[in-house]
Amino acid sequence: MASRHVPNRIILTEDQVPKQWYNLRADMKELPEPLLNPGTMQPLKEEELYPVFCKELAHQELDDQTRYVDIPEEILAYYKTYRPSPLHRAYRLEEELGTPAKIYFKFEGNNTSGSHKLNSAIAQAYYAKKQGLTGLTTETGAGQWGTALAMACAHFHLPLTVYMVKGSFNQKPYRRSIIQTFGAEIIPSPSDTTNAGRAILAQSPETAGSLGCAISEAVEKAVTTEGCRYVLGSVLNQVLLHQSVIGLEAKAALELADEYPDVVIGCAGGGSNLGGLIAPFMRDKLLNRTDPRFIAVEPASCPSLTRGKYVYDFCDTAKVTPLAKMYTLGSGFIPGANHAGGLRYHGMSPILSKLYHDGLMEAVSYEQTSVFEAAAFFSAVEGIVPAPESAHAIRAAIDEALRCKGTGEAKTILFGLTGTGYFDMAAYEQYLNGSMTDIIPTDEALANYLP
Amino acid sequence: MASRHVPNRIILTEDQVPKQWYNLRADMKELPEPLLNPGTMQPLKEEELYPVFCKELAHQELDDQTRYVDIPEEILAYYKTYRPSPLHRAYRLEEELGTPAKIYFKFEGNNTSGSHKLNSAIAQAYYAKKQGLTGLTTETGAGQWGTALAMACAHFHLPLTVYMVKGSFNQKPYRRSIIQTFGAEIIPSPSDTTNAGRAILAQSPETAGSLGCAISEAVEKAVTTEGCRYVLGSVLNQVLLHQSVIGLEAKAALELADEYPDVVIGCAGGGSNLGGLIAPFMRDKLLNRTDPRFIAVEPASCPSLTRGKYVYDFCDTAKVTPLAKMYTLGSGFIPGANHAGGLRYHGMSPILSKLYHDGLMEAVSYEQTSVFEAAAFFSAVEGIVPAPESAHAIRAAIDEALRCKGTGEAKTILFGLTGTGYFDMAAYEQYLNGSMTDIIPTDEALANYLP
Repeated sequence: MASRHVPNRIILTEDQVPKQWYNLRADMKELPEPLLNPGTMQPLKEEELYPVFCKELAHQELDDQTRYVDIPEEILAYYKTYRPSPLHRAYRLEEELGTPAKIYFKFEGNNTSGSHKLNSAIAQAYYAKKQGLTGLTTETGAGQWGTALAMACAHFHLPLTVYMVKGSFNQKPYRRSIIQTFGAEIIPSPSDTTNAGRAILAQSPETAGSLGCAISEAVEKAVTTEGCRYVLGSVLNQVLLHQSVIGLEAKAALELADEYPDVVIGCAGGGSNLGGLIAPFMRDKLLNRTDPRFIAVEPASCPSLTRGKYVYDFCDTAKVTPLAKMYTLGSGFIPGANHAGGLRYHGMSPILSKLYHDGLMEAVSYEQTSVFEAAAFFSAVEGIVPAPESAHAIRAAIDEALRCKGTGEAKTILFGLTGTGYFDMAAYEQYLNGSMTDIIPTDEALANYLP
Repeated sequence: MASRHVPNRIILTEDQVPKQWYNLRADMKELPEPLLNPGTMQPLKEEELYPVFCKELAHQELDDQTRYVDIPEEILAYYKTYRPSPLHRAYRLEEELGTPAKIYFKFEGNNTSGSHKLNSAIAQAYYAKKQGLTGLTTETGAGQWGTALAMACAHFHLPLTVYMVKGSFNQKPYRRSIIQTFGAEIIPSPSDTTNAGRAILAQSPETAGSLGCAISEAVEKAVTTEGCRYVLGSVLNQVLLHQSVIGLEAKAALELADEYPDVVIGCAGGGSNLGGLIAPFMRDKLLNRTDPRFIAVEPASCPSLTRGKYVYDFCDTAKVTPLAKMYTLGSGFIPGANHAGGLRYHGMSPILSKLYHDGLMEAVSYEQTSVFEAAAFFSAVEGIVPAPESAHAIRAAIDEALRCKGTGEAKTILFGLTGTGYFDMAAYEQYLNGSMTDIIPTDEALANYLP
């Protein structure tokens, strides 16, 4: 197998591209715990989600039986404008590391929103349009989700309001501009457009906001506006379903190269990329066909898997969302100013939380200076400047490859490169000029928020 | 032909990808005038270029006989990491415009340097490495060329020094960071590292610099450093040769769709993209096989074709380069602060200048507010935020499509989308908030510099 020539970029042909999403829950022996209605503490029914989510997405959220879901024609047509995404063989990286390991990465940054978020954004916008909705709301932290959803909504002529964490809104004017260029309205959160925002502003007028707070505002705005619903770019089961296209394509491309991963690595904030990437490989493991390792990589500043608790918690700060059983640092936890804005969520996808809890997946955390060291090295070697989020997976993949160098094992490593770092150059500049520091919460600090 | 289904993104398979560059000069009935040695006013010999360019590139610069040049294996291998680039059918744009025209665009922004510049950067870095050189110098204005060359030099472990126009250096810190992330040294120009720079600083200590001045510094640095040569990202014949890969791929992809362009449109600064895009179609025209129109689009603030003179002029400010016969506004001309930094060069490729002079190509200029109007519209419709340079071609393509709407003609329009605007969001912000203005030089102002 090793003698076989593998190109440095494998791209599936149109007939090799997946036409269905894969729902991992259908193969899990033990399902994740259900979402609870915080009023009744009973499992949520599909209808109870209708005021917040559009109907088809509410259905997908709770459907743990349907194994394969047909991707609607309209979404397949849109996918064709930027998918299949390439699977890269990182020959240069292997060479520079002097490792016998074979390193592959699935690159999702080559669409013009810059990240994998578009895979779910276009699906959510499609179902909303199909239901005849007249508007959507969402929140964004780093801005990748806001950008992707703004692109998707522009495609379907669907008005969008984005609540952007005020700190990011002020620090990243260009993210703001790109979202506006796609035609969305963007509001710094907390704002005076919602009760949740006004309450927080009354308490702390100078706050830079948080993702949990922006979620509260976006949900409130959706449920109080006629014809409007809320959409979310991670954590949810429906999002992992849509993102399974990443893993399905990666598996098909590896098959063309006659390869199968020994280790699958992805960064984990809410879990959208990691859950999508590992899905078909985890299926093999659940069915005892193969036994790959799975590694979730999170920032040391926001270590929900490695230092959080597996309990029911709210998904937002103002506690207006359902309760989810997940690894969480507490819905009141606000992580330090880590540059990987997409990994600064207090909780974790219930599906991934369950897999981790059951010992089917590992987790590791890294400090940001170590992550940026890997990012800068990777940029020069592979010619792709990764998003800080994605660089967490690069760091772990490099360390795994270096271990292989020690042991002489020619492992096949697959990692997810979720996006590009074009809008994160201020962070790179900090790293390059030596002014970047690490932020690791103390046990005492975490204890203040842990449920 | 119209009933045939064309996908919205055509990607060539590996065996359909060009393995040779095409040298348009080999088919021109009248050749562009030769470069002159400013000392002797005689045509430059290949050997006279060796102190500045590496040997193979000096040869390519003067070779007007070889029709097809084999692309070396190492460059083909690198091209495979990001080429073939997609040819898009802009169905959504056609629909929004309500035009019967069929609009295609060749998208060169999907490599992680963000533009077409990488096509020549990797070639120039390869030949330099092959010759055993130990360093390269260049200049960059907007930063696309500097970014691409830094990526290419990182690939070949070749040290690079980039002289970046000081105004851009200060206004675009993220461009600076990305070039540094790829491992290149970057120096704001004018600087105290060269005689040319020191002379200009002595005269005007507060100057923001210019492209012509940065070229002077980069050339001086190269010729005074052992083992070092200078490389340039546009204007030169060698660059147009490398960029012919754009046009060759576009032509092959159109053939798959059973199409041939009635009009080919590209933005023109130094001419690297336009020259590459039109090359194989211009060949057809020169051989009387077809008769497409070609349109060069330039900014109203730097109108070398539409308001310049076709004469011999220097390529830089300090007059250290050879003389080239080209459309020029004068080597001392410094355009107003147009946001399309890649189109702010006082001259134009001698090949394109000759074609324009001989009536084989048209030219048009646009004001930047009109260009950004097209860019913002295109972003929302096609989901790609174009670089300001590329948006000039979009503006012209839209206007051509609207004329078709008037006449009912179903013309096939092909334009070059050279890159993404991720590093130009400050300009988009100006456009969105209404503070962007137009800068059109008066005849009197131009007369000060015209040769």
